[in-house]
Amino acid sequence: MKDIQIRPATSADFDAMWTIFTAHIASGESYPFEPEASREAAQAYWFAPGVTSCVSVLGERVLGMYRIMPNQIGRGRHVANASFMVSPTAQGVGVGRLLGEHCIEEARRQGYLAMQFNYIVSTNTAAVMLWKKLGFSIVGTLPKAFRHKRLGYVDAYVMYQLLQDPDHWPTADA
Amino acid sequence: MKDIQIRPATSADFDAMWTIFTAHIASGESYPFEPEASREAAQAYWFAPGVTSCVSVLGERVLGMYRIMPNQIGRGRHVANASFMVSPTAQGVGVGRLLGEHCIEEARRQGYLAMQFNYIVSTNTAAVMLWKKLGFSIVGTLPKAFRHKRLGYVDAYVMYQLLQDPDHWPTADA
Repeated sequence: MKDIQIRPATSADFDAMWTIFTAHIASGESYPFEPEASREAAQAYWFAPGVTSCVSVLGERVLGMYRIMPNQIGRGRHVANASFMVSPTAQGVGVGRLLGEHCIEEARRQGYLAMQFNYIVSTNTAAVMLWKKLGFSIVGTLPKAFRHKRLGYVDAYVMYQLLQDPDHWPTADA
Repeated sequence: MKDIQIRPATSADFDAMWTIFTAHIASGESYPFEPEASREAAQAYWFAPGVTSCVSVLGERVLGMYRIMPNQIGRGRHVANASFMVSPTAQGVGVGRLLGEHCIEEARRQGYLAMQFNYIVSTNTAAVMLWKKLGFSIVGTLPKAFRHKRLGYVDAYVMYQLLQDPDHWPTADA
């Protein structure tokens, strides 16, 4: 674990990221993309303008990645949105937690005041438990909003946490 | 009221839609766009590929508009997202309600199984009351997620309703 590093993703990482991405999409259990999602769609997802993407690496091997972007424009841009994927061959060893902690720290560093997940599949209990451990609460439940590959339509959660004490948030429209 | 019609928006409607759009944005009370949002951003918002937009008109005058699009891709595309704007000079006469009813009917016609609003500003009580009347429930509360122009950071709601009886939803991944 101590040799795992997290750093900004570059285009040289994309082949490894694409392998992880397709494995997640194929499962149909956590992300909305259809299995036929293109490399271009994945590229846009991880490297669009305004997106910060980081990878966790062990030597040259990419173990997982996250991205941060504003969840809304303008009057909602103080809330970050984030997404995570861990390689199926690196699960259960704490990579998700390392990525989550790094992501929260990075969001704070970028000045975000809160972080929101729009669409955590309710049956993805490992993710729900991890995000609760890292300070998130379920603030919404979307009935049957995710078409799970094995389980059919299941609920999705909205999860959220404040990243800064609201008493010290910058004044709005000063 | 009986002379108000609702029909698909065309590029010929855009000037009128832009006037309504800028009035809403200027208030800073309901939509995240900053006041300096461009015509191009508004055009993309109402006429992007995959978006259905309709206007309510009284003769040649545009009173308001809505758009429908999938709230997520792929495994979430059965849930519609919708947005509404009514001209400040046509408020309080039921245009919002007509648009809402039309939008729900149109979403059903397009085969959507549910509808979700991601970001209803909690202090926009007229909107919250209207959507409740039309069958929506508040399924989530996003703490301080909207930077209101007059009130500072206020909560936003996620609102949701099923559009079809889940017992009759098409089988997932048949």
